Amino acid sequence: MYPNDGFRELGRHECLRLLATASIGRIVYTRHALPAVVPVNFGLDADGAVLLRTSAASELARAVDGAVVAFEADAADAETHSGWSAVVTGRAEIVTDPAEAARLERIGPRSWAPSPEEVFVRIEPELVTGRELVGGRTMYGLHLSA
Amino acid sequence: MYPNDGFRELGRHECLRLLATASIGRIVYTRHALPAVVPVNFGLDADGAVLLRTSAASELARAVDGAVVAFEADAADAETHSGWSAVVTGRAEIVTDPAEAARLERIGPRSWAPSPEEVFVRIEPELVTGRELVGGRTMYGLHLSA
Repeated sequence: MYPNDGFRELGRHECLRLLATASIGRIVYTRHALPAVVPVNFGLDADGAVLLRTSAASELARAVDGAVVAFEADAADAETHSGWSAVVTGRAEIVTDPAEAARLERIGPRSWAPSPEEVFVRIEPELVTGRELVGGRTMYGLHLSA
Repeated sequence: MYPNDGFRELGRHECLRLLATASIGRIVYTRHALPAVVPVNFGLDADGAVLLRTSAASELARAVDGAVVAFEADAADAETHSGWSAVVTGRAEIVTDPAEAARLERIGPRSWAPSPEEVFVRIEPELVTGRELVGGRTMYGLHLSA
């Protein structure tokens, strides 16, 4: 992706394996024509789709339904100078099919405490990209402060 | 921002204070008309501008120069069900003024290891927003998996 940055590109399978180790990621979308980003907890479906749960009345649900979004999770270790980042890019949709919603009720992410009207949002894993940083390399983008 | 989500909105000053405690954040921009997000280490200037350092030849530098971007940092604690997220939204620009670049050389973020041609990117703090989650509240967006 960035030829000059010293990162190692990760394949789709590796990205999904790393994403499965994270519980929090960030959904990136457009709000009022500006870039917007909000952390969310998430789960992964068997096909690699990202599953979120949110209030049906939330601005997030309205903003992302039907839109192409990016979903990112990462980990970085300033001690060992290592880290990874994985991004799923694809169309987000509120799950409206009752059978599918019931299935996600069983396997999807859980709230700390349920809110009255929740929906699942599914992000199709159309593009799955990622990068890994092995300690001690020079790199753009993740040259941690000492 | 989201009236139905149970988060507490943070003021500009509080956001900048929290951002100053983080060393890694994520820059959100547009790449080939798709949402893009990449983790970067960063510093804060005295006025709240976000300072990044990257390879002059990187696609990131080219993609964000002159564009409105969002920069987000967060922290979440699954044990205490608490966390925060802060976002700086504003125009990003590669610093070309030699005196300013020299100043940032002294106060700006440092690379783990220098790459031959680096530039500073400055994100103007036009909009500084954030949210805090206090443990045990129901919320959209950060209802962590157990």
